[in-house]
Amino acid sequence: MAASAPISKTIYLGAFAHCLSLTDLEVCSKGAIGVDEEGVIAFVERDVGLEEARKRHEGWGGARVLEVKDGFFFPGFVDTHTHAPQHPNTGLFGKTTLLDWLDQYTFPIESSFSDLTKAHRIYSNFVSRTLANGTTTCAYYATRHVPSTNLLADICLKRGQRALVGRVCMDMLSPEYYRDESIESAVADSKASIEYIRDIDPKGDIVKPIITPRFAPSCTADCLSALGKLAKDTDAHVQTHISENTSEIALVRELFPNSTSYTNVYDTANLLTPKTILAHAVHLSQEERKVIKARQAKISHCPASNTALTSGCCPVRELLDAGLTIGLGTDVSGGFSPSILEEVRQAIWVSRFVAMQSPSAASPNNAAKLSTAEALYLATRGGAAVVGLEDRVGGFEVGMEFDAQMIRLGGVPARGEEGETGFEGAGGPVDVFGWEGWEEKVEKWVYGGDDRNCVGVWVRGRLVHSTGRFEA
Amino acid sequence: MAASAPISKTIYLGAFAHCLSLTDLEVCSKGAIGVDEEGVIAFVERDVGLEEARKRHEGWGGARVLEVKDGFFFPGFVDTHTHAPQHPNTGLFGKTTLLDWLDQYTFPIESSFSDLTKAHRIYSNFVSRTLANGTTTCAYYATRHVPSTNLLADICLKRGQRALVGRVCMDMLSPEYYRDESIESAVADSKASIEYIRDIDPKGDIVKPIITPRFAPSCTADCLSALGKLAKDTDAHVQTHISENTSEIALVRELFPNSTSYTNVYDTANLLTPKTILAHAVHLSQEERKVIKARQAKISHCPASNTALTSGCCPVRELLDAGLTIGLGTDVSGGFSPSILEEVRQAIWVSRFVAMQSPSAASPNNAAKLSTAEALYLATRGGAAVVGLEDRVGGFEVGMEFDAQMIRLGGVPARGEEGETGFEGAGGPVDVFGWEGWEEKVEKWVYGGDDRNCVGVWVRGRLVHSTGRFEA
Repeated sequence: MAASAPISKTIYLGAFAHCLSLTDLEVCSKGAIGVDEEGVIAFVERDVGLEEARKRHEGWGGARVLEVKDGFFFPGFVDTHTHAPQHPNTGLFGKTTLLDWLDQYTFPIESSFSDLTKAHRIYSNFVSRTLANGTTTCAYYATRHVPSTNLLADICLKRGQRALVGRVCMDMLSPEYYRDESIESAVADSKASIEYIRDIDPKGDIVKPIITPRFAPSCTADCLSALGKLAKDTDAHVQTHISENTSEIALVRELFPNSTSYTNVYDTANLLTPKTILAHAVHLSQEERKVIKARQAKISHCPASNTALTSGCCPVRELLDAGLTIGLGTDVSGGFSPSILEEVRQAIWVSRFVAMQSPSAASPNNAAKLSTAEALYLATRGGAAVVGLEDRVGGFEVGMEFDAQMIRLGGVPARGEEGETGFEGAGGPVDVFGWEGWEEKVEKWVYGGDDRNCVGVWVRGRLVHSTGRFEA
Repeated sequence: MAASAPISKTIYLGAFAHCLSLTDLEVCSKGAIGVDEEGVIAFVERDVGLEEARKRHEGWGGARVLEVKDGFFFPGFVDTHTHAPQHPNTGLFGKTTLLDWLDQYTFPIESSFSDLTKAHRIYSNFVSRTLANGTTTCAYYATRHVPSTNLLADICLKRGQRALVGRVCMDMLSPEYYRDESIESAVADSKASIEYIRDIDPKGDIVKPIITPRFAPSCTADCLSALGKLAKDTDAHVQTHISENTSEIALVRELFPNSTSYTNVYDTANLLTPKTILAHAVHLSQEERKVIKARQAKISHCPASNTALTSGCCPVRELLDAGLTIGLGTDVSGGFSPSILEEVRQAIWVSRFVAMQSPSAASPNNAAKLSTAEALYLATRGGAAVVGLEDRVGGFEVGMEFDAQMIRLGGVPARGEEGETGFEGAGGPVDVFGWEGWEEKVEKWVYGGDDRNCVGVWVRGRLVHSTGRFEA
C-alpha cells in the first residue's frame, strides 16, 4: 500500500521552484533536495551538483538519486475545498446558479452514495484525478452517508493522499430523500465517522476527519450549535460554505433573523475556530472579515466555481490585506476541474476581473491583480495554512515533509518537420524552445500546463502517482 | 502532401453534434454523414444504422466507414484571430497590459522572423498545435517579413489547414528594428505576399492572403489608406485590431485627432469591408457598432487575451443584439492557449463577468450570459461567417465541406481499483460514467476537454491530424 510501503533515502536533483512568501517565488535552476526515510527534508542545496551535495552531507553517498529532466520539482498542491461525490457532474451546470444547481444536479447524485459499489467507483476515480493533477492534500466533502464517507478515507489512506474527509450534515431545507433525520442522528453519524477515521490513521498523518455542516441554509441553528460543541469536544477540523451567492445570503438572513450576518450564524454556533475552513467568502462585509480574522478561521477561494455559477468575484486582495489566511479550492462540481493548477489560473483571471470592475473604467485597479507567484502561494503554502499543515508542507525547507510534484515540459524539435510536433516526447501541452529562462518555464507551465506535465507526485517522500515518464 | 492526397468516399458513423443556429445545438446520438471524394457532404442521416444509410444512398455500398466510439463528430473550429510568431511567448505576460506587453514580449520575437530556419520551427510547431486542438480554419497574423509569411502559407497548404495568412504592416510607433521602411515598401511587400499565396493556391481552397495593418497606432493614416486601396484592388481579406484597451483607444485619439472614433480611423481608410476581421472590439461605442454593421465588417472575440492582459470584458451579447457577426480568436500570445475549446470556455466566463458587473449586484444580468450552445456557435458557424466560409464549413449539411473533429471521451471502469484510473484508455481528461445523456457528454467535453479528446481532424474530408486513437 502506497501509504505504508518503506521508502529509501533520496536526493531529488535538478531545478525546483517554490514560494518563499506571498510575493516571492524562488526558482532554483540547479538544486539538490535530500529526503530521509521518514519523508522529511534533510537538506536543500542550491547551485550544486550531485557529488558536491553528497560531500556536504555525510551518509548520503549511497542515497538513491532522482533527477528531473526538462522540468522542475514543485510543492504538491493543497485543495482546500472540493466535493468528491459530485465528480460525475463535473462540467454540468448550464446556466444555473447555486440554489437551483443544488436541486437539479447535486442532491440527486449525492443521495445515491448509499450504494457503496458506486461510491467506490466514483471516489477511486476522483482521488486518481486529484493525485494526477498534483494535489497532495485535499479537504473533501463526502455525503451524508457514514459508510461511503469512511470508504473515501480508506481510499485516501491507501493511495497515500493527505485528506480531510467530512461526512456532510444537513437537517433542513434539503430534499426529503437526502437529509439527516434529527440533530441527534446528525451528531451521532458525524461522531461515528470521526472515530472511524481516527481509528484507521491514529496520528492523522494522512487522513483526518472534518466536521461538515453543508452550509447554514441546510442546518437548523440547534444543529449548528450541536456541531460546534462536537468540534470542541473532538478538537476536529470544521468546513462549511459562506457567503457564496447573493440569493443564498438573503436566504440565510431570512432563516436566521436573529443573526447579524452569515458569519454571525456560524460564530453563534461556535463553528469559527482556527481549524475552520470557510469556502467562497465572496461577499463578506468588513465586519464579517474582522470576526473571521479574530477567530483565526480560514478561507478557501474557489474562483472556477464562483465564475461558473455566476456567484461573484471574490476580492482576494482585500481579504489578504485584511490579514486572512487563504488557500484555493476546486469546488468540484460547482468548479469544472479537479486541477488546482487550473484554479491558479482562475484565481488570476478573477483578480483581473476585480481590477476591471474598478469604478474608473479607464484605469483598472491594478492593485487587485494577483501575480503568478501570489496565486502559486495560495495553491501551496496558503492552502497548507488553511488545513493546519503550514509547518509540514507547502515548500522545500529542512524539517518539512516532501510533498511534491515533478513537472516536465515538452521540447520542440530543432526543425519542425511534418509529424514532428514536439509535444509527443516529454509530453504535455507546453512547448519549450530552449531559450527560455527558468522563470519563463514556470510561467509557461502555470498558464499552459496540465496533468500531462505532472509526471510524478510524492507525499511524505512516497511516490503516490506516476505517469511512467519521470525516470526517462 | 495532406492537402493534395486523394480521398475515398467515406461514411462517418455514430453520434454527431453541431449548431443549427446561435441558440440551437443539435446532438444526434446515431448518425451517418456521407462525404464524397471532393470532401463535400452528400448526405446526413439521423437515427439510422449503417446498412439503412447505405440503402438510402445508391452507390455508397462500397464506401469506407469510419465509426466514432465513445464520442461524437463535431465541426472543426475556426480561429478568427491569432499570431503564429508569438507562439513561443504563450503564457508570458506577467502583469503587463497591451502597450508595454508589445514592447517587452512581442516586437522582439516577431523581429527575429527574418531567420527562416527559426520561422520554420515555430510555424510548423504552431500549426501542429492548432490542428491538434481541432482548428480547421485559422486567420494568422505572421510578421513584417515576406519570406517567412509565405513560408507560413506553405506550411498550412502542405498540412491541409485552411488559413488566411497576413504579412503585418506597421510604419510608425514600432521599434526602429521592426517596422516598414515606407508606405511604398509596406504596400509592395504586402502585395508580394498576396501574389505568392494566390500563386500556390490559385482557387484559395486552403490558403488565402489577408491584408494586415497591425493596428491603428502602428500605421500612419496614409499607410492605412494605401492598404485600403490595396484591399479594393486585390479584393483581399483584411484583418486588424480595434478597441482592445482603454490606453490604446486614448492613443488612437491622440494620433488621429481628425477621426471621430477608432472605428472611424479604419472607415476613413476604406478598411471596413465585408471581408474585414476586427479583433477584440471590447470598448466600442453604439455609433461605432452601427458603422461596423453598416460596412458588414466582422468581429473576432478574444476573451482569453482580453482577460490575461486586463483589456476588458467584451459585451458579446450586446454586439450580437446589434446584429454583428462574431467568431472566436485565440489571439496567441495575448491569449494563453492555441485551443478554441479553451476560448469557448473563456467566452462563457467573460459573459458571466459581464453579467456580474451589472449595476445591481444583487441580481446579475443573466441575459448577458452565453450558453454552451451559443459559445460553440461562435467557435464554428460564427467563425466561418467571419472568414467568409459560412456556406462551406461550420456545420454538417448537405453541400457543405466536411471540416470536422472526432471527439472521444474516457470511460471510467466499473470498479475503480487502484491504478485503474479510467482515463488512460480512450484518453483525455473527461470521465464518462455511462449514465450521461449525449447533451451531457457534450457539456462534459466543453468544460473539461482538451486536445487529448480530439483524436482526428479532417479538412474537406481529408485527415489532417490524428492521435492514432480514432480507429480503435
